[in-house]
Amino acid sequence: MANDKTQVRFGILGCAEIARKLCRAINLSPNSTLHAISSRSIEKAKQFAIKNTLPESVKVYGSYEDVLDDPFVDAVYVPLPTSLHLKWAMLAAEKKKHVLLEKPTALNVEELDRILDACRSNGVQFMDGSMWYHHPRTEKMKEFVSDTNLFGRVKTIYSSSSYLPPPQFFENNIRTKADLDSFGALGDAGWYCIGAILWAMNYKLPTTVKALPATTFNSTGVIMSTTVAFHWEQEEATATFYCSFLSHETMDVSVLGSKGSFHVEDWIIPYEESSASFNLTSAARFAELHIGWNMKEQVVQVHNELPQEAFMVREFSRLVKGIKDCEIRPDTMWGDISRKSQVVLDAVKSSVDNGFKMVYI
Amino acid sequence: MANDKTQVRFGILGCAEIARKLCRAINLSPNSTLHAISSRSIEKAKQFAIKNTLPESVKVYGSYEDVLDDPFVDAVYVPLPTSLHLKWAMLAAEKKKHVLLEKPTALNVEELDRILDACRSNGVQFMDGSMWYHHPRTEKMKEFVSDTNLFGRVKTIYSSSSYLPPPQFFENNIRTKADLDSFGALGDAGWYCIGAILWAMNYKLPTTVKALPATTFNSTGVIMSTTVAFHWEQEEATATFYCSFLSHETMDVSVLGSKGSFHVEDWIIPYEESSASFNLTSAARFAELHIGWNMKEQVVQVHNELPQEAFMVREFSRLVKGIKDCEIRPDTMWGDISRKSQVVLDAVKSSVDNGFKMVYI
Repeated sequence: MANDKTQVRFGILGCAEIARKLCRAINLSPNSTLHAISSRSIEKAKQFAIKNTLPESVKVYGSYEDVLDDPFVDAVYVPLPTSLHLKWAMLAAEKKKHVLLEKPTALNVEELDRILDACRSNGVQFMDGSMWYHHPRTEKMKEFVSDTNLFGRVKTIYSSSSYLPPPQFFENNIRTKADLDSFGALGDAGWYCIGAILWAMNYKLPTTVKALPATTFNSTGVIMSTTVAFHWEQEEATATFYCSFLSHETMDVSVLGSKGSFHVEDWIIPYEESSASFNLTSAARFAELHIGWNMKEQVVQVHNELPQEAFMVREFSRLVKGIKDCEIRPDTMWGDISRKSQVVLDAVKSSVDNGFKMVYI
Repeated sequence: MANDKTQVRFGILGCAEIARKLCRAINLSPNSTLHAISSRSIEKAKQFAIKNTLPESVKVYGSYEDVLDDPFVDAVYVPLPTSLHLKWAMLAAEKKKHVLLEKPTALNVEELDRILDACRSNGVQFMDGSMWYHHPRTEKMKEFVSDTNLFGRVKTIYSSSSYLPPPQFFENNIRTKADLDSFGALGDAGWYCIGAILWAMNYKLPTTVKALPATTFNSTGVIMSTTVAFHWEQEEATATFYCSFLSHETMDVSVLGSKGSFHVEDWIIPYEESSASFNLTSAARFAELHIGWNMKEQVVQVHNELPQEAFMVREFSRLVKGIKDCEIRPDTMWGDISRKSQVVLDAVKSSVDNGFKMVYI
């Protein structure tokens, strides 16, 4: 398997919980294979392999460097704490490994630019680990939002991404540590909201970004929850989002246009693996006497033969294989999307850090 | 019918389009009857009576004063432009007519206070015409939001109220005229969002109110659309809403708590008259490996034997009858709710009028 040239061979840096999901996705994706895993401790890596019943063919390394030095590894998946992304993503690129990097991509856009430059100059593909972009439902939603007759143009967007982790999360999890993931809930959960909002706005950056004073922090100053407002001057559009580690699990996106609107309540992780839906209305009107509507929401159901994370791996591997086989250039679209999300993420953090002032982008 | 002492007899000031819906509601409510309609022009009033096939027993007056001077009229419904509310609601109260007043209730809270004082000192009931409070679905949603085990406490609320009227609306409708309804879309559509947000927060006023700069106006300076953010300092809660005359029809409320959340997309006017629903989740969790959820949204369906506007009329008439029969004092709860909505409405208007600054309440 390790020498099967038709498959993109993945190495994973670190044994984060999310790496379990990616091991499965790499296995499910038809054009990729898991070649190596690693941890700073060989024992931890071995335990990970056992827990996830990885086949014996998978190499188990006691250092990240070993993965980067393995000539059979084509691409690395990097689920390390954000503060380590710069170092390991750059090293991976320099070793000519294609980079699938967990979000948030970096501590700031200057770091991300260094990573993207390293990928560009070494001819390797970059993609961040936001899975929802790759779900066929997202494509269907995009079709609707792009339809000037049915949807019109975007007027406002609302999004939320929240969950309530167990108490030990707040003691131990990297997402609550200022030196590891300084964006806290904003980076972990808010990243998705920013991505969804930019996606709906065709990646046009907002004119202003402002966090609300109800933002909460843990004792070390890491954001636990925040509410943020954007506006686009030229488009006369607005967006608001809420992200939190202190609230019930939600994953809402509502996009309201001049002629239509849609709602989805499980956009980051669909309720079910094999199908997902969203609800839309278009040309809705009050009924006579305003005693009802002329329609109800239409449920658009989308079936998917693979989980969205496997679609992500498949797309990433397709690009990697194209580069390997045909010597085409890496596709910069995914890096551009990540970069815009990072720019907005930085602006929100700046608003929070500066007394919730309005930040112009 | 006019002398049936078991029925509360309504007079209507003005032949606004919404009055058609109320005529029907008064007819459907078991404890009320339509006694008189009026317009500044007797011809217009007669046409309204014909168009709505009102029975001949209904008096048709060519002035509002005639309604207030009719001794058989117990209560008036006032769907006049907001700038006329102060005059006609006060006159009605002084003539001992109970007042069902369309929203927004007044041009500012000082005006509303004068109306409420007049109602109080004349012993008449006050209620504003927000119908959704009276739908049995609203009671069910309130049960859920009040359940500390299933819902927890409110973290954030999102609401939208928007519609896209035909072009002539922007030429002729009172809601676009600075001298008639100076709040524009904020008063007509945003009133509901403010009400829903306060309702979810148990009528606790927010600490701050701020409109976003993407607010749009017509040529005379009337608000056509705006996005607004609230925060509650003590509760560490936030809310955002969008209201608009320039967007597709939406009526969204999402309330996100520490343990549960719910969504409703037709809260102001339900899709259908005889039943309505909302979607809730409680104790939702990621499934193992984060490849799904442990549940989907639960649809709570509520059947209603009357349309919500008939429930409103019935409740108002019940209070009026209690005052007439038992000489009990008017219920001040509805006036208190209206007053809080008006206070917040004024604060949002102040934010808009002062360069979108943050307004402390």
